[in-house]
Amino acid sequence: MIKSINVKTRSHTEFVNITSDVQKIVKESGVKSGICYVYVPHTTAGVTINEGADPSVVRDIQVFLNNLVPHSGDYMHMEGNSDAHIKTTLVGPSQIIIIDDRKLLLGTWQAIFFCEFDGARNRRVNVKIVKES
Amino acid sequence: MIKSINVKTRSHTEFVNITSDVQKIVKESGVKSGICYVYVPHTTAGVTINEGADPSVVRDIQVFLNNLVPHSGDYMHMEGNSDAHIKTTLVGPSQIIIIDDRKLLLGTWQAIFFCEFDGARNRRVNVKIVKES
Amino acid sequence: MIKSINVKTRSHTEFVNITSDVQKIVKESGVKSGICYVYVPHTTAGVTINEGADPSVVRDIQVFLNNLVPHSGDYMHMEGNSDAHIKTTLVGPSQIIIIDDRKLLLGTWQAIFFCEFDGARNRRVNVKIVKES
Repeated sequence: MIKSINVKTRSHTEFVNITSDVQKIVKESGVKSGICYVYVPHTTAGVTINEGADPSVVRDIQVFLNNLVPHSGDYMHMEGNSDAHIKTTLVGPSQIIIIDDRKLLLGTWQAIFFCEFDGARNRRVNVKIVKES
Repeated sequence: MIKSINVKTRSHTEFVNITSDVQKIVKESGVKSGICYVYVPHTTAGVTINEGADPSVVRDIQVFLNNLVPHSGDYMHMEGNSDAHIKTTLVGPSQIIIIDDRKLLLGTWQAIFFCEFDGARNRRVNVKIVKES
Repeated sequence: MIKSINVKTRSHTEFVNITSDVQKIVKESGVKSGICYVYVPHTTAGVTINEGADPSVVRDIQVFLNNLVPHSGDYMHMEGNSDAHIKTTLVGPSQIIIIDDRKLLLGTWQAIFFCEFDGARNRRVNVKIVKES
């Protein structure tokens, strides 16, 4: 079973907390035990797992990445978004989360964030639930 | 089946080789063929796979990350550990390893390292073994 | 089922597009729905998913990583390839891709790249296909 989450980003760089959307898909799947795959099918956006309680944490991650990977640099790609492609490779396009007792087995402070690096855009996240056999 | 490994770190930054702990869980599961998911449920610690033979390799990775992500910086998160959150996103919270013939199919030099970025602490690593159907 | 792809790199740093090799393994497996695990068993090479249409994109990622992680630095590992180990931890040794309708469910612009950081060498990539039960 594959489900999609639509994410509408509003800024050039933006981390969107999609934990409750993913949790809802897990619940509706009825799967008790297994693995949840969260996959971003874009090349200028990724997905990470980090603290969801204090929004300053993902703000700090974004500011760090913006400083680390300058928007203008020694780039040849003509579309002017090489920085977004580089951040995507650093952060990665997917995350796996264990499903236990019909829920995502996240740590107390963990949340799942869609990472927009070249917004604002309409984006998609694919979620696949695989039941343990 | 989900098992946990307890890791007691002793320094602020520390890479702990957990390969034999994970291998033991694979062996005890009796699973011949499948996937091993190694998942860190923390937001200031991650997991990587790199060389285990020469301890200088993970020392060099830690020194590099400490220089790349300064402990004090343009951070808003008040707990003073934004550097640890950033490193966690760069390294990632999980690894997957193929199980073949009842063993982790690691390369000759590969070892699995729990990456502490905000120690010393008592930490946990969740390991899930999924048998191929 | 585990299959291997042999990759012969020709430069010190090189991203090799292995999408069609992985797609071929998926097709030959006959698996209609499941997960494809792409795993690099080396400690100085990784795997990423990024844009395959314009070769400038992976050129820009490589140039960025070469500038970020200098070949000579504050390193203790005596083999002189600590930069390659560091890049491997940043990029990661594996990727997962959803299989749907007997094909990799990649985004329009996504391609799978083997990332050589210490070439030229003969390398291997392990691909495991797991069918949904």
